[in-house]
This record gives sequence, structure tokens and C-alpha cells, in this order.
Amino acid sequence: MFKSKQVLITGGLGFIGSNLARELVARGAQVTVIDSLIPEYGGNLWNIEPIKDKIRINISDVRDEHAMKYLVKGQDFLFNLAGQTSHIDSMENPSTDLQINAAAQLSILEACRRHNPDIKIIFASTRQMYGKPQYLPVDERHPLHPVDVNGVNKMAGEWYHIVYNDVYRVRAAVLRLTNTYGPGMRVKDARQTFLGIWIRRLIEGKPLQVYGDGKQVRDYNYVDDVVEALLAAAVSPEADGQIFNLGADDPMALRETAEVLVSLHGSGRFEIVPFPADRKVIDIGDYYADYRKIRSKLGWKPTTSLRTGLMKTLEYYKKNAAHYWETPDNG
Amino acid sequence: MFKSKQVLITGGLGFIGSNLARELVARGAQVTVIDSLIPEYGGNLWNIEPIKDKIRINISDVRDEHAMKYLVKGQDFLFNLAGQTSHIDSMENPSTDLQINAAAQLSILEACRRHNPDIKIIFASTRQMYGKPQYLPVDERHPLHPVDVNGVNKMAGEWYHIVYNDVYRVRAAVLRLTNTYGPGMRVKDARQTFLGIWIRRLIEGKPLQVYGDGKQVRDYNYVDDVVEALLAAAVSPEADGQIFNLGADDPMALRETAEVLVSLHGSGRFEIVPFPADRKVIDIGDYYADYRKIRSKLGWKPTTSLRTGLMKTLEYYKKNAAHYWETPDNG
Repeated sequence: MFKSKQVLITGGLGFIGSNLARELVARGAQVTVIDSLIPEYGGNLWNIEPIKDKIRINISDVRDEHAMKYLVKGQDFLFNLAGQTSHIDSMENPSTDLQINAAAQLSILEACRRHNPDIKIIFASTRQMYGKPQYLPVDERHPLHPVDVNGVNKMAGEWYHIVYNDVYRVRAAVLRLTNTYGPGMRVKDARQTFLGIWIRRLIEGKPLQVYGDGKQVRDYNYVDDVVEALLAAAVSPEADGQIFNLGADDPMALRETAEVLVSLHGSGRFEIVPFPADRKVIDIGDYYADYRKIRSKLGWKPTTSLRTGLMKTLEYYKKNAAHYWETPDNG
Repeated sequence: MFKSKQVLITGGLGFIGSNLARELVARGAQVTVIDSLIPEYGGNLWNIEPIKDKIRINISDVRDEHAMKYLVKGQDFLFNLAGQTSHIDSMENPSTDLQINAAAQLSILEACRRHNPDIKIIFASTRQMYGKPQYLPVDERHPLHPVDVNGVNKMAGEWYHIVYNDVYRVRAAVLRLTNTYGPGMRVKDARQTFLGIWIRRLIEGKPLQVYGDGKQVRDYNYVDDVVEALLAAAVSPEADGQIFNLGADDPMALRETAEVLVSLHGSGRFEIVPFPADRKVIDIGDYYADYRKIRSKLGWKPTTSLRTGLMKTLEYYKKNAAHYWETPDNG
């Protein structure tokens, strides 16, 4: 389906974008990745090391309207993954979060409408906008109640995509991702996922820190499964104008997740610590998704268990630590 | 409750803001109105003619961060009514709509958080973000599905208020307004409400234009009732962090509304015309709200019937046509 197709990936040097790029290259696509390489975000040139000569790398920011206007032209698919992902940063710099997660999305869609209306867009959204679940598992009809600025802006970002699909027939599908993990994720800090910093601390021989009582339940998707979901949404006309939850069959409490990680690693420990105040106020309690909609409409389901995925991830970071720990973000 | 209170109204020279300002002056408040007087928007100095010596008028744009930072200081209440209201304009200039309805709201909230965290904010939102109703009447739990860029940006604007209430305890309440009408509304065009242009054409002896088949049902609030709702939300701690629909007990089809208007006027006629393409695609079909939440929590209900309200409105525009028809927007 992707052979010789022109594919643009925003955030393409980041965690999910780079894994997606590798898979698309394997399927014969002509891939261009866009990334700002902002140090606090997810971009890392090491992520695309195995395919660096097979893709086009364009360092630019999605807020750069002129660059985006040029880059969307002639593309068959746009995987729109660039974003500011830190909830804490969104509260400290709400305007930056708005410019990246909302305003830039709107200008990308305008560029597509004016310069390439036949493109198909897949937008990576987040479960964050559901807020504290009113029921579990959370399906797509769950009321939206974002608990931080990031959630509001991501909500706006995804709805621009739906509006442009519905009004202008610029085809767009939205996936609401839950906790994605795997090789290539940011491990410097918890800006992308707490699993990143957990794995780093484990390998460094430091205790993992579990906030609260550790009983909060989460669902996790291994990155390969998320890549499959993105590709399924890209090729299916049934996905146009639709919003899909991703999710997993094996949600797990944070404390248990930490135990599994320690046991997979064969050593290490975790400690239960009180929530930092700035996190407590935006914590959402238990969350896991009902992903039946994407399963029935697009035939997607995750195939990598949490244990298998965590083991692969641990192995990757043991081997590649040098490229993710202390080196600059640009590789 | 408002005697000697410092009150700031964004969009204060506009339709609802000016009616609110008059009522607040009557109740002894110290009122400052902010308005950009952008010609396509709702501001009109004639709206505050009766109170112009009793309020402070500050011509500025809510996008002016520095002005807003200064102006929110020392205020007890902020009625945050400034907005871009045209659905069509939001599709033609999506970035402008975003800057006013989303980005400016976020920077106003930041200004309040940093410089006046004890302020109480009341935000005027819109039913627009519900989209095409999935059931009627529409309550606050109805899924959000904005159908145009304006709906997305207003949705973001209101949720920033809820997040700042919940995270920072900057008290904020949100009202989702339906069709508001009355003296002071924009009648130059349909940018604010179709009732404005209908009343103008009626008085000018031109036929009203009813789009589609005229069977679309709408609910209408007379502006005095909306002012009461805003004031009720301002004084009630129960409103903090809450979203309330406004609504009416006498929803009416567009065709019937046109008939009532013609009969109240004593002459004139209407014509059923096909939807213009740009409106059809964002039309929401029937809409009327369930407003039981605000009735039970704040004791608000509308007291002006549609017939009475339309009669008062017609009388106002017959008398004041000169100030709303051809004169510049600044009065």
C-alpha cells in the first residue's frame, strides 16, 4: 500500500515518528521526516540511524508556516506526530504549547487544504483530554474534560483535523494514544512517558520512583503496535473523519508495572514517593481505554504483551544508552 | 452584590457586554469596558450612550497581552465576552479566530493567575461546540463535536477557563449561550445572529431570507435574561469550574420565527431560499438546550418570552436605526 508513496512525518526524529519511518521505508515509501530537534522534545538523530540514507531529513519546526506549506506539497500521506507532550511544561509555558499543539496544526491543515487537498492525514492525539475517567474502560464517547493546558490544546488540534475532514474533505483520521513505550522513547526525563525515566534509572542502578500509592492503573502500547495502528488508519477510508482510541488488553497498576520492570531487568528496586504538587493536581487516577472501535473498524489490535515489549525496550537501552543519556539530543 | 465592585468587561461595547455594563452601573459597580471596535465585530459606542459618563472605556484588543495584564489588576470580576463570533469568518481566517478565541483567552488567564488570582471570571461560550445534536434537548453532557473552526477555538477557550479554575483556583464559570437577541445586537449582517439581519431587512421593507426548509428549530434568549445569567454565575461559588447551558422554554422553527417577526412588525414577508454552500456544510440542524443545570444550581430561568423580546427589539431598532445601519461601527 505504501510502495513508492510520498510520506511526510512531522516529529519524524522522535520516538513514534522514527519507528514509523523505519517501517515505511521497509514498505518502500519515499519518506520525509520533519523535526525541530528542540532539546526538550523527542527528536534524536540516532533514532533513524539505520535508515538515515534512505529518507529525507528536514530540520524545521511545525510552527514555520512557510516551510510546512512547501513540505506538504506532493505528499500522499502526512503522519502528523509533532507535538509538545509534557503536561508540566504546558502549564509553565502555556503559550508555547498552544502554538505547537493547536496553532501549528491549524496552519498545517490550511496548507494542505490550499496546496494539497488530496493528502491523507493521520493525527496523533492523546487520551489526556478525557481527564479523570468517569467510567472504565474509556471509550470514544466518554466526555472530554482536559485537566491541563496540554489536554486543551491537543483537543483543539485533533478537532481542527475533524473539521477540515468534514468541511473541506481533506481526509484526516485521529488516534488517541495512551502510554506508548519502546525503543527510541525519551529517557532523559518524564516529558514523554514515565516509563522512559524508569528504564533509565533502572539501568543506572537507581530506584524507580512511583508516585502516590502506586495503585493507579494504566494501559501501555508497544511502539510497533502503535505504528501498525497509524498505518491502518492511513490506508482505510473508513478512518476518515473518525477518532479512535488505542489501548491494550493488559492494563496494569503502576506499582505492579515497576515490579515487572525490576524483575525483567533482574535487579533494581522502586520506591513509593508522594506526588509532587504540580503533578498531583493534574493526575487523572486510573485510566485504560476501550479500543473496540478501532478493532472493529480497522481490524487493529495490539500484539506485543507488556512483558515482551518492556524486555525489548530494556535491551535496546542497555545497548544504546550512550545515544540517549548524556549526548546532545541531535545524536 | 456588585455595589462598588471593580468590574471588567471584555467586548464591553458589544451587544451583550453593553447590556451587562448598563445593568452593572445600575447596581453600583465601577465598570471598565474593553473593546477593539474592529468593524466586523460587535462593538458600537452607541450601545453605551446612556452610561458613557459612568464607565471607563478602554479601546484595546484582547490579543494585546500588555494592555490586558494591566487592565485585569485590581478587578473583582471579569466578564470575558470578547470574541470572534462569525462561523463563516472563522473558516476564511482560521488563524485570526484562533488568536482571539483561544490564544487571547489563555493569555488573559495567565495575566489573572499572575497578577490577580482572586478575580472571578465569567466566560461567554457557545452551543456551537455541540455540533449537530445527537439528541434533544442538548444538556451539558452531550458530546462535543464542533463543526467549524470557531467551534473548536471556543471549545479551547472555555476549557482553558476550567483548567485554570481547577489547577490554579482562579475562579471561573462558563456559560454556553444559544441565540441571544435584543437591543444592541449587530444588524449589519449575520455575523452575530441571523435575527439581526432579519430585523434590519424587515424594517427596511426587504424580505427576510430563511435558509433551507425553515424547519430548523432554535432556542432564543432575550439579552436581559442572558445578563441575569452572567450575574448569577458571577456571584455564586457554586458556579466555579462549572459549565452551564442557557436555553429557553419556547424553541421555535426558523420559518415560524420569521412569521412571528413579520406579524409583530405588522408588515413584511419572508422567503425560503436554498442554503448557501458555505453555510450548509456547517449547519447543525435542530438545536435547543436543556438548561436545567443552571436552573437548579443558580436559580436562573429566562423570563422574557420570544414575542415580547422580539417586540422590544423591533422597537429599539426602529428608533435607533441610524446608529446601527450605515454609520461607522464606532458610533
